[in-house]
Amino acid sequence: MGDGMSLDALTDTVLARCEALASCSEAPDRLTRRFLCPAMRSAHELLASWMRDAGLGVRVDAVGNLIGRRDGQTDRIVAVGSHIDTVPNAGRYDGVLGVLLGIAAMDALRGITFRRTADVIAFAEEEGVRFGVPYLGSRAVVGRLGPAELALTDADGISVARAIEGFGLDPSATARAAYPPGQPEAYLEAHIEQGPVLDESGLGLGIVTSIVGQTRLSLAWLGRSGHAGTEPMRHRRDALAGAAEFIAAVERLAQADPELRATVGNLVVTPNAPNVVPGDVRLSLDVRHPVDEVRRQAVDQLRTWARDIAGRRRLTVRVDPIAESAAVACDAGLTDRLAAAVAAEGLTGVRLSSGAGHDAAVLAERCPVALLFIRSPGGLSHHPDEAVRREDVRAALSVMIRFLRLELDRE
Amino acid sequence: MGDGMSLDALTDTVLARCEALASCSEAPDRLTRRFLCPAMRSAHELLASWMRDAGLGVRVDAVGNLIGRRDGQTDRIVAVGSHIDTVPNAGRYDGVLGVLLGIAAMDALRGITFRRTADVIAFAEEEGVRFGVPYLGSRAVVGRLGPAELALTDADGISVARAIEGFGLDPSATARAAYPPGQPEAYLEAHIEQGPVLDESGLGLGIVTSIVGQTRLSLAWLGRSGHAGTEPMRHRRDALAGAAEFIAAVERLAQADPELRATVGNLVVTPNAPNVVPGDVRLSLDVRHPVDEVRRQAVDQLRTWARDIAGRRRLTVRVDPIAESAAVACDAGLTDRLAAAVAAEGLTGVRLSSGAGHDAAVLAERCPVALLFIRSPGGLSHHPDEAVRREDVRAALSVMIRFLRLELDRE
Repeated sequence: MGDGMSLDALTDTVLARCEALASCSEAPDRLTRRFLCPAMRSAHELLASWMRDAGLGVRVDAVGNLIGRRDGQTDRIVAVGSHIDTVPNAGRYDGVLGVLLGIAAMDALRGITFRRTADVIAFAEEEGVRFGVPYLGSRAVVGRLGPAELALTDADGISVARAIEGFGLDPSATARAAYPPGQPEAYLEAHIEQGPVLDESGLGLGIVTSIVGQTRLSLAWLGRSGHAGTEPMRHRRDALAGAAEFIAAVERLAQADPELRATVGNLVVTPNAPNVVPGDVRLSLDVRHPVDEVRRQAVDQLRTWARDIAGRRRLTVRVDPIAESAAVACDAGLTDRLAAAVAAEGLTGVRLSSGAGHDAAVLAERCPVALLFIRSPGGLSHHPDEAVRREDVRAALSVMIRFLRLELDRE
Repeated sequence: MGDGMSLDALTDTVLARCEALASCSEAPDRLTRRFLCPAMRSAHELLASWMRDAGLGVRVDAVGNLIGRRDGQTDRIVAVGSHIDTVPNAGRYDGVLGVLLGIAAMDALRGITFRRTADVIAFAEEEGVRFGVPYLGSRAVVGRLGPAELALTDADGISVARAIEGFGLDPSATARAAYPPGQPEAYLEAHIEQGPVLDESGLGLGIVTSIVGQTRLSLAWLGRSGHAGTEPMRHRRDALAGAAEFIAAVERLAQADPELRATVGNLVVTPNAPNVVPGDVRLSLDVRHPVDEVRRQAVDQLRTWARDIAGRRRLTVRVDPIAESAAVACDAGLTDRLAAAVAAEGLTGVRLSSGAGHDAAVLAERCPVALLFIRSPGGLSHHPDEAVRREDVRAALSVMIRFLRLELDRE
């Protein structure tokens, strides 16, 4: 590889394969492909054939990750990949684009035997849609999928273990999905940004320096329901009015720091009747920042404000932690070499942090990781209109080929 | 009647009958009794036997109102009553207490033939729960239940007409439920306040001067859903943040006028996921005031603020009218005579407006109405813990006996 023609042809192939994979769906009119659903088997069949075409040996590990391997002169592994599950009513690029770029890069590097072994990993689960817990695929690869995860159940009461069995795999063997100690030695992931930063900067590629840390809380605001006609305003203990004041405080705090994100995305009112003063509101709070200490301070501030608002309004508020993850730094050396590959291709890549989690955050427990972002027009993702620009996909592919060629052959 | 012992016995009977009626429910563990459900037939059986015990002749009109009659020397009718349907998971006094007080008052006045005929009406529908439209019982009595109401359907797709048929009545005869022109000549309703005004005043009885007017609107806030991690705050078009700002404005406006009530009781977020910036929020707005012009000005102000908030936040807001009703004045003369009866019993009754709608508001289209409120401890209603004080029920009964004795015999 190396001539422009082949790069263009490979780019078109990647884009056509994104379309083809979108037809592997649980629903006829939209793309929904959850962990180990039948549509994932169809996706495996397509991906396996494309991996073989790129000269890779194909296997499915014990949790359903599909892995294409090019043996090197040693057992030292460089992995490239992303996930192939989707959110409900998804776009066509989230996850799969990174896998298809990995396959295309190995296709471009066909016929070369490198010092290192190359793995292209299509993680079977990243979104957390089916079992409420994300990263089941990459957790297995780093040896952190245990009995607790296997016992998780989906909306139909089916456990992870039974889902694995239903996919024709052995749930007692999931420990074998873990890579050998010290492997892989490096992990590269390409992913659409899913946000507007690159698009607003007018740049096609981003070099991710860190993946933000995240705190997810659930807040239960309890007041007293009352009659919307008979209860005077001063007498009310309106849980929704308290929650609304809190939502305003969340927004105000987050707007004060350009890197902070704070979101109330889920809110449920009880009894939720037009003529009843709300007595009970449950809401979610999601706080993210690349610097853990800043995130923790923001969460502490919001907890304090929630208590203050509740106290002033004669409400009670209960704050339950749901999940917390620390920020993950991409490897400085690997990321500098990725930036060098971008520059060597004559491109400009902006450095940014990732506001979304990615498989790279889990792989970072085990090895240096680098994460390449591809512009999301309009910042749109998790939506059927999710898009990419062909020129950006081409640029990403050229960078990945250059980068992998060097990484696979490093001493 | 007239001696203290009988009044006490009748009071205890009223309270025991409230308990007994609470067992006529659609659900085993809570009180829910919607218009023409099977539980309403059980309620009819109990009420009819109690009406007969009080010397009343019993009939069911064409929409299911149960009416107990004591013939007078003329066909001129004084009616007393309230409703026997309930909200879901209701208390034991809302509506039924007024009906049982009416029966008990006629029991106390047994053996007397008055100039006027007395009707005790147990309206079959007031809450608007089953068909989304309230006052179906009293509408029929004033001749305002037509084809539009008969075509309304419940959550199971059953129309009012079919529900009437299913109850063994003739839906083509509903016009016959209307009283003859000019009848009744007066209507008295006793009802729990369902609010805290009497309780906070330390008084057991209230004399209602007017029933507030009401505007009900639906507001659709449309922004753009986005990723809670990747979308910077300044880029967001968060429909819930806009709705929260509006809820704060609603509360602030209503707090400025002690007679104004404004409530956002229903709010639904889409997609309502913790990690998605909300793109769509639907909410209800309920505004009430005894003075129609003040209510209209408040609604106009809130519409303007909604547009301002939406504009500043790059959201759109659509405001749909759901219902509007003008304030209804209780009859000055009848209300003064009710107040005189309260005073003659040695009691103090505070005058107040009703923030809730009542059958009296519909009857007022046809005749003078008076509305007697009974203290709601804690202001609690539409709740299983809804309560009354025995002393207040006894006081209300003594007032009603005195009042009806005079009204039924007026020239």
